[in-house]
Amino acid sequence: MVAKNAFYAQSGGVTAVINASAAGLIEAARQQQGKIGAVYAGRNGIIGALTEDLIDTGKDSASAISALRHTPSGAFGSCRYKLKSLEQNRREYERLIEVFKAHDIGYFFYNGGGDSADTCLKVSQLADTLGYPIQAIHVPKTVDNDLPITDCCPGYGSVAKYIAVSTLEASFDVASMSKTSTKVFVLEVMGRHAGWIAAAGGLASSVDREIPVVILFPEIPFDKAKFIAKVDSNVKKFGYCSVVVSEGVKGEDGKFLSDQGIRDAFGHAQLGGVAPVVANIVREELGLKYHWAVADYLQRAGRHIASKTDVEQAYAMGKAAVEFAIDGHNAVMPTIERVSSHPYVWKVGMAQLSEVANVEKMMPENFISEDGFGITDKCREYLVPLIQGEDYPPYKDGLPDYVRLKNVAVAKKLGDFTI
Amino acid sequence: MVAKNAFYAQSGGVTAVINASAAGLIEAARQQQGKIGAVYAGRNGIIGALTEDLIDTGKDSASAISALRHTPSGAFGSCRYKLKSLEQNRREYERLIEVFKAHDIGYFFYNGGGDSADTCLKVSQLADTLGYPIQAIHVPKTVDNDLPITDCCPGYGSVAKYIAVSTLEASFDVASMSKTSTKVFVLEVMGRHAGWIAAAGGLASSVDREIPVVILFPEIPFDKAKFIAKVDSNVKKFGYCSVVVSEGVKGEDGKFLSDQGIRDAFGHAQLGGVAPVVANIVREELGLKYHWAVADYLQRAGRHIASKTDVEQAYAMGKAAVEFAIDGHNAVMPTIERVSSHPYVWKVGMAQLSEVANVEKMMPENFISEDGFGITDKCREYLVPLIQGEDYPPYKDGLPDYVRLKNVAVAKKLGDFTI
Repeated sequence: MVAKNAFYAQSGGVTAVINASAAGLIEAARQQQGKIGAVYAGRNGIIGALTEDLIDTGKDSASAISALRHTPSGAFGSCRYKLKSLEQNRREYERLIEVFKAHDIGYFFYNGGGDSADTCLKVSQLADTLGYPIQAIHVPKTVDNDLPITDCCPGYGSVAKYIAVSTLEASFDVASMSKTSTKVFVLEVMGRHAGWIAAAGGLASSVDREIPVVILFPEIPFDKAKFIAKVDSNVKKFGYCSVVVSEGVKGEDGKFLSDQGIRDAFGHAQLGGVAPVVANIVREELGLKYHWAVADYLQRAGRHIASKTDVEQAYAMGKAAVEFAIDGHNAVMPTIERVSSHPYVWKVGMAQLSEVANVEKMMPENFISEDGFGITDKCREYLVPLIQGEDYPPYKDGLPDYVRLKNVAVAKKLGDFTI
Repeated sequence: MVAKNAFYAQSGGVTAVINASAAGLIEAARQQQGKIGAVYAGRNGIIGALTEDLIDTGKDSASAISALRHTPSGAFGSCRYKLKSLEQNRREYERLIEVFKAHDIGYFFYNGGGDSADTCLKVSQLADTLGYPIQAIHVPKTVDNDLPITDCCPGYGSVAKYIAVSTLEASFDVASMSKTSTKVFVLEVMGRHAGWIAAAGGLASSVDREIPVVILFPEIPFDKAKFIAKVDSNVKKFGYCSVVVSEGVKGEDGKFLSDQGIRDAFGHAQLGGVAPVVANIVREELGLKYHWAVADYLQRAGRHIASKTDVEQAYAMGKAAVEFAIDGHNAVMPTIERVSSHPYVWKVGMAQLSEVANVEKMMPENFISEDGFGITDKCREYLVPLIQGEDYPPYKDGLPDYVRLKNVAVAKKLGDFTI
């Protein structure tokens, strides 16, 4: 058997640990000489495959690849580009095969979320549909935590830790200021469809350290009167209140709360966040002084405070993908299987891509407290293990020593292709 | 000599390390039995003194006080409350003396910024003005880094580290996404008058890791055309651009850039940040996809990523304040004196409060690059030592194990006082 080369690409929004998956995958592949040849990474995701813009990961040293484990973002570039169906865009699939053939690629590893799983599934069917033999393995990644079957998604645990830590720290701050100044702190977090990330704000409060945190979930239509009553009662009881609001929160009219028809002085529409909208509601209804923050990319890029559990799982997913490939699997995705919560034990499982693609895992209803503003004990039991442990990067001159790879291009063999 | 009691209070916006100063002060005072009696903390700053709401720090264990070193925020509560002059509000000064007398307080330690230094100076003059013998020592604290004489201010180094790390991480993120998605990332940071905090964003870029960071300083009037040209050229050269904008940036008309006359659908004024304003300018002028974040309290409460140098200096300032008191000083403030930058060596100095109060230290002009969008080598030489070292808090269940003191009240001896 002649060793086939492997293609690896990062897809969609990047995370603090997607490069840990890359490290796991490349290091495992390097152990499989004779079975896997070169690992070529797509520059900017699948676009790199379509345009034959491949990176020879072999040109980067073992220590550089190892440093990916502690480096956030997508080291090879990511992209937001969804392949259409074979019927709709046969040209792109034929181009993929052309590139794969030219570079002797027999393994396709795709590191992404739900949309990417769908792309990976389509590539896995190229043997059947277009006669090109390839094994396609999906490597799970998404801060949204919305892939099915797997207990959690690499990337989520670190965002959850970032949001829990930030909510805790800002709550301590506002508590100090509340006597004469700020009484309400609002933190906007990611999550268009599901409240997984917002839920993590609830972890700031615990039995031995009660903190009034009001969570606004995208699953629960915003009820202004109920919200104001909740904030008011917290401020009366504790002197202050923290609010964690998901960017995807909608009003009872089904429109995003952030979409308030806001205009600048010239009447131009302004794209704002939801945090200032919520803060303004607090001011108007209760007359309280507030502060607000929008975490945005900081939350998903915050490798400096990544969850050790998350880093280990991300690495394990990359490694398992290679093992699955060597074992002859196609159209599968490694998963995280929870064996127990107390103590937290997990192992690597396997899911069929056909059961993963285009399925969105929502928060279970029993994870949100009855009043709609908090998390239940069941949710806490699920979340706490995912933020366990710290995995600090090395530092140089006071800053994390994140790696930048050389990303040496593989010589092109084909003509140009326009996407 | 009978030991006099000490009063300690935290004032103004809290920081990641103001409690480290409290730890240094209380631990040093506990070593001075026979000279210093009890340390009473004001609950919510000077308001605690005026209302005789004192906390007996002696009721908290040595380990709890020691844990203050790794706990952000103000453990005793802070306040925004500036004492007027003796002529304008003699009543409050007489009340302070009444409370000090009732609780045998001979030392007044005030932990704050410029306004607090002024209050501390007024208290230091009570012997002369109202015949009450007291030694008043100011303990420097401010994320704004704007106190004179001292080389830097405790609290600033940790904010600077937070902003430098966050800018670095978000820049890695946007670089990964830039091919098909976000090309410009905007981070709003604190700093109404001076660009000290914004300057720290410039540290994300270094000789061996160039990152295109455009800084908008409050010192430089916003020039839209020049800004857009700078962002455009960075995006053309690097594929992406990060922008760090100080909340205090003003337009050429002298008005805050954040104050854009923004109205909601009902015509109500909206209080927004400057980050969305800058992001919208990028979208309108260049048509680029952007993301924006507002760090707000997260930056000054982020003890999880505090600068070790900053923590050590904050602790040393609290300790030195006690030593100064024991040595009989009044109306002084411990300072940080830089002995050298390479290697970084500093020592504790002493400033007269009369030279500190009401003096605001601005960024030197030669710290801002000629085009107004970056920092100079001189600035870098100043900043780099301040973010050196990590000083991680202990963790429990995945979160920093920050302490909450018991904060037991001292029995009141006087009648009520209305502030």
